[in-house]
Amino acid sequence: MPPPRRQAALSHIGEFQLIQSITSSQSHPSPEIILGIGDDAAILDIPKGRHLVISTDMLVEQIHFNRRHASFFEIGYKAAVANLSDMAAMGAHPTALLVSVALPAALTFQNWKDLYRGLSAPCRTHQVRIIGGDTSSSPSHMFLSLTIVGTVKKGCALRRSGAKKGHSVYVSGTLGDSSAGLDYLQTQTSRTKVRGIPLNVARHLVRRHFRPTPKIALGKLLGNAHWASAAIDISDGLSSDLGHLCQQSRVGAIIQADDLPLSTSLKDYAACKNGDSLTWALHGGEDYELLFTVPPQYGKKVEEAAQQHSLPITKIGVITSYQAGIRLQDAAGNLTALPPGGYNHFPS
Amino acid sequence: MPPPRRQAALSHIGEFQLIQSITSSQSHPSPEIILGIGDDAAILDIPKGRHLVISTDMLVEQIHFNRRHASFFEIGYKAAVANLSDMAAMGAHPTALLVSVALPAALTFQNWKDLYRGLSAPCRTHQVRIIGGDTSSSPSHMFLSLTIVGTVKKGCALRRSGAKKGHSVYVSGTLGDSSAGLDYLQTQTSRTKVRGIPLNVARHLVRRHFRPTPKIALGKLLGNAHWASAAIDISDGLSSDLGHLCQQSRVGAIIQADDLPLSTSLKDYAACKNGDSLTWALHGGEDYELLFTVPPQYGKKVEEAAQQHSLPITKIGVITSYQAGIRLQDAAGNLTALPPGGYNHFPS
Repeated sequence: MPPPRRQAALSHIGEFQLIQSITSSQSHPSPEIILGIGDDAAILDIPKGRHLVISTDMLVEQIHFNRRHASFFEIGYKAAVANLSDMAAMGAHPTALLVSVALPAALTFQNWKDLYRGLSAPCRTHQVRIIGGDTSSSPSHMFLSLTIVGTVKKGCALRRSGAKKGHSVYVSGTLGDSSAGLDYLQTQTSRTKVRGIPLNVARHLVRRHFRPTPKIALGKLLGNAHWASAAIDISDGLSSDLGHLCQQSRVGAIIQADDLPLSTSLKDYAACKNGDSLTWALHGGEDYELLFTVPPQYGKKVEEAAQQHSLPITKIGVITSYQAGIRLQDAAGNLTALPPGGYNHFPS
Repeated sequence: MPPPRRQAALSHIGEFQLIQSITSSQSHPSPEIILGIGDDAAILDIPKGRHLVISTDMLVEQIHFNRRHASFFEIGYKAAVANLSDMAAMGAHPTALLVSVALPAALTFQNWKDLYRGLSAPCRTHQVRIIGGDTSSSPSHMFLSLTIVGTVKKGCALRRSGAKKGHSVYVSGTLGDSSAGLDYLQTQTSRTKVRGIPLNVARHLVRRHFRPTPKIALGKLLGNAHWASAAIDISDGLSSDLGHLCQQSRVGAIIQADDLPLSTSLKDYAACKNGDSLTWALHGGEDYELLFTVPPQYGKKVEEAAQQHSLPITKIGVITSYQAGIRLQDAAGNLTALPPGGYNHFPS
């Protein structure tokens, strides 16, 4: 069968051809993958001494992404990173991805190919193979559901539940860039369009929004050395994800507002908008940085190792008792409650 | 936090409470599940000498199910069975399920609970635990995406690709009941409502449609003994799924029309509708029976073992060369081509 034309609508392409187009695009073999796409299930060999780590993420058009702002490539790219980031948060080595998509039949074969190119790009970087999935038409919106599989050395997985009073709170990279990038995209298409944003600032923030980097190497470093007592990736926003970590660990925390790592772009953008960069850093989602806690005796080791591997991390606070709750401390030493401010799909 | 009221809309219930309602409903522990719901990923221990088997299925409202016919319990039940059936088709032992759902915010907490009761029922039967998932609101239709995880003894997995010329073709149970059940449901709500269908006939077919049984025990029997050379579960319909098996095995087949196992209910229903039961049996989907091939030397062993374990199977044909294609033979010996007649999500 010849490959479908690029502009052919999906309604004119058989489901089998869509699946075939994935299979044929993957060439790098993996000793762990015994059987990939094309049967009732995939088969994997889990190396001796390792546990399976598995996670799933659903992305819904108009809820998690908007086709007005994001290309199919970008939608795919970010969906893959969201899943890879879950492996990073567990200190796991990612192996394989399963991809289910429900697509409006009016989309074209080129849209499908772009989506898969996007999904495949970060997978290729981390040698993760697409081993299965499902395709369906959708009567309305586009839906993606990804499941990622990885492995971790037995006993080395990072969890949300191990933080203890006195442990330091760290975060990787910088915070708030992704949500500021989204804010820029949204205001550019709205009536409140802000002028005077330097092009390099906008570019950096938008790139951080569409092309986040999963912190796989940092997760493995922290897990394998048993340095982190708890970890989570920042998908909903620092305040929300710190809330999850503290809830699971039954602890509280104090975050130092002045210690939050902010990019120059975020500061410049906030200045142009007369806005507060702190709000984005505290509550903005989808940075896919790692938030983790470290017992005092490992603090120096973690910082040295991170620097040695060029993995930027910043100490932003300390774990307290559960009763004390989660609080933010300003430069003057004033403490205020820090309630979760991320996205709730079914808001109260 | 007190549990939400039954009629509370999902828009008034936090995502966290929805997830909590799953976690709290599961009690039976499993030595293989190191970490379940509540972290960035789940952790599983794969027993020594076994491979991981993993598969995913997406169900879209109006494509795979219709809320006019199916209750939330039934939608959940069938979604779980579709996934369990993929494990059966691999000869695998199912272990755990990940469940992602996108739900219109107007649905109630009771709807959600019913969906999860439905998902949980067949899982409980097979001691499969829900270990993860994702929840999202949906701006339009309801979407479900399930990923099932199981294990199989190394080298014992059933695949689609091992059928050889001369092997016998078998099927479990009876064929066509599920699609006849759907036909009944659809005609009951349409203007062409058929009268005179005996209640027990309608009940049996509708039950087969909503409560199919995954053939886990049969799959394990065939796989562990190396008796089946190829296998697939019948989700799209015999003609389509036989097509998949033959394509992967690069073989053809002859199916004996008179040997297809039909239930009395299907025959009675077809008679009432002046229809042909053969059409349902050949092309009707969602029976979740197993279709498998057996080398001649194992035929008797398979039949005896199946009978001993009360697992009904029927020999329905023979594998031929790829060039000969897939054909149907009637009682008079006439051969006709048997093209796939199942559902194509993006029909040409």
